[in-house]
Amino acid sequence: VSEPASWRGDLLVIGTGLVGTSVGLAATRAGARVLLHDVDERRLDRAVALGAGERWPGPDRDAARLVLVAVPPRHTGGVLIDSLQRNLGETISHTCSVQLLPQREIEAAGLLDDRFVGSHPIAGRETSGPDGASPDLFADRTWAVCPTTATGAAAIAAVESLASACGAAPVRLDPQHHDEVLGRVSHLPQLVASALAATIAELAPADSALAGAGLRDSTRLADSDPELWAQIVAANAPVLAAALPTVTAPLEALAAELAGGSPQRAHDAVRALIETGRRGRQLLPGKHGRPAARWSSVLVVIPDQPGGLAAVFAAAAEESINIEDLRLEHAAGHPVGVLELWLRQGEEDRLIAALRERGWTATSGAAGS
Amino acid sequence: VSEPASWRGDLLVIGTGLVGTSVGLAATRAGARVLLHDVDERRLDRAVALGAGERWPGPDRDAARLVLVAVPPRHTGGVLIDSLQRNLGETISHTCSVQLLPQREIEAAGLLDDRFVGSHPIAGRETSGPDGASPDLFADRTWAVCPTTATGAAAIAAVESLASACGAAPVRLDPQHHDEVLGRVSHLPQLVASALAATIAELAPADSALAGAGLRDSTRLADSDPELWAQIVAANAPVLAAALPTVTAPLEALAAELAGGSPQRAHDAVRALIETGRRGRQLLPGKHGRPAARWSSVLVVIPDQPGGLAAVFAAAAEESINIEDLRLEHAAGHPVGVLELWLRQGEEDRLIAALRERGWTATSGAAGS
Repeated sequence: VSEPASWRGDLLVIGTGLVGTSVGLAATRAGARVLLHDVDERRLDRAVALGAGERWPGPDRDAARLVLVAVPPRHTGGVLIDSLQRNLGETISHTCSVQLLPQREIEAAGLLDDRFVGSHPIAGRETSGPDGASPDLFADRTWAVCPTTATGAAAIAAVESLASACGAAPVRLDPQHHDEVLGRVSHLPQLVASALAATIAELAPADSALAGAGLRDSTRLADSDPELWAQIVAANAPVLAAALPTVTAPLEALAAELAGGSPQRAHDAVRALIETGRRGRQLLPGKHGRPAARWSSVLVVIPDQPGGLAAVFAAAAEESINIEDLRLEHAAGHPVGVLELWLRQGEEDRLIAALRERGWTATSGAAGS
Repeated sequence: VSEPASWRGDLLVIGTGLVGTSVGLAATRAGARVLLHDVDERRLDRAVALGAGERWPGPDRDAARLVLVAVPPRHTGGVLIDSLQRNLGETISHTCSVQLLPQREIEAAGLLDDRFVGSHPIAGRETSGPDGASPDLFADRTWAVCPTTATGAAAIAAVESLASACGAAPVRLDPQHHDEVLGRVSHLPQLVASALAATIAELAPADSALAGAGLRDSTRLADSDPELWAQIVAANAPVLAAALPTVTAPLEALAAELAGGSPQRAHDAVRALIETGRRGRQLLPGKHGRPAARWSSVLVVIPDQPGGLAAVFAAAAEESINIEDLRLEHAAGHPVGVLELWLRQGEEDRLIAALRERGWTATSGAAGS
């Protein structure tokens, strides 16, 4: 991690929840002097105790080089306006998942100038609060930096160097484009996962027990915090009002076709939808942003006891085979699971042989990208 | 695995795709004599070569005790009718994901009697063909057994003992109830995942690169085989025509609320949806069908090289900590990943300490069930 230059290690973080505390921990580790502020004294104490920085003595001291507002979406605009009015820093930024709304609130207050730049570290978590914080929360993540037409070069440089100091990759995005894309790849999947999970609530327990890993994967996002997401989606309401029909309209058209009574037309409609979905999946980023590679999977039966997984990964390591992705599947009633390991295509036979040699039950799984 | 009693190890499998070949491999391993048949000679040769059984010499020999039809949904009814007409076995069953349609086809042909029982080994895979087959495909899985009102006790016993011989847990279900529940927990998530993945196809590559693990998890099912799923959904059309609106209607109502311009109403609508989704998620089966336990997660930064994962699991094994679930997250641009390990609540501090002692970067993650 290089020396933070343009913000000179002088950072005020307002809001010591998961993101603010994690930024404090990462910036402190990078050698910065971090000041922390929160309206909730207990949360602030906790962040200080975790080592995320020291208490901000208040606006009477010199302005910080960089102020980062990391409060819930609903309060982001107000705290930014207050920070700009009180001139708390040379650069004023935030971490909100939505960019346009706080920017418009600042503009409406007549305060949009070269000091302000929006930003958004894209590190989704299904948790909140300082106790979930980590200096590594942003390692290997994209940190969107979203200048307005008024933003100065120094403000952009300050936030980009903070992002780098936190281990993230800063990516510059137009604020409106940010909201549209995040609406599609983050907020929309959240709502769809919740709507799908909500249908499970209607089932009898014996029936929901028939659900497998597919439904579990599909609804994982549905564990997210209701209040946080209510604020994010409300702040990005126009984008999601337009995006939701891109999912619901094809499904409603399909439902009409299925109700229509022609098996062949129903078949063709489903087939077309699934083929389009496969094309979409192939556009998801390959690992580490590399061009799409082909992967193969290996299935291994794992007993449900400590050490079962360790032996499998040790065998892969001994063969110098890199595991690209993994998934553990359990089903009701039996004390074993099946581990699916994804490898670069062509390595699966070597891993299967190595595992069988060591007494494991291993077979070839799916191929995909 | 106990000795297969009621079908006396005498099995004819018609259809040597993924499921038929896997049943052949499992039954052969359990000591059965397995005969195989397929209209595709190459696929049949492949299944025989894999050790799933021997070629069926044709209908002139004695009838098999148990005939299992494992062909695509579209052909299931026809092959069952043919098997019943030619009296190929004492019990005639199948493995189709949909129960009512083949049953009605048999009924319409006037052949519904005590020999027929529907069945469905619930082992979803995103692959097909004999080369993906495994004798462990059904280990730890539910195998639905769906008698009609005409089915005899011997037929039920035959299929249940085959399921057990394959390592699965047989569960008796009314055929219509089977189709309704599988429609909700399997076919509906497939369509929703495909519809969500289809929206990615509209994005520019630079934009889809901003997608994270959440969207990847939510759309994993979208990799499935279009033709197979077109046949499954068409065969279960009435159930899905009714089930799709349970997902689309709440999302359309939400879109209307988001377009309405009241931030507070938008907020409340999203919050209600996400809270209902969380309740649904909590009804998903706990691991091994145990009552829901509380889990905690630990996040570990993993370098992208062989052996990285092995050392983490070795540390857990040394501490006798069982890993209940796991997920590997990658993001664009950086050659490391973050591994999320799920443990029984209360064990996370011990694992974090053990990992830090060994030089790993480990922090506390989310809590959930």
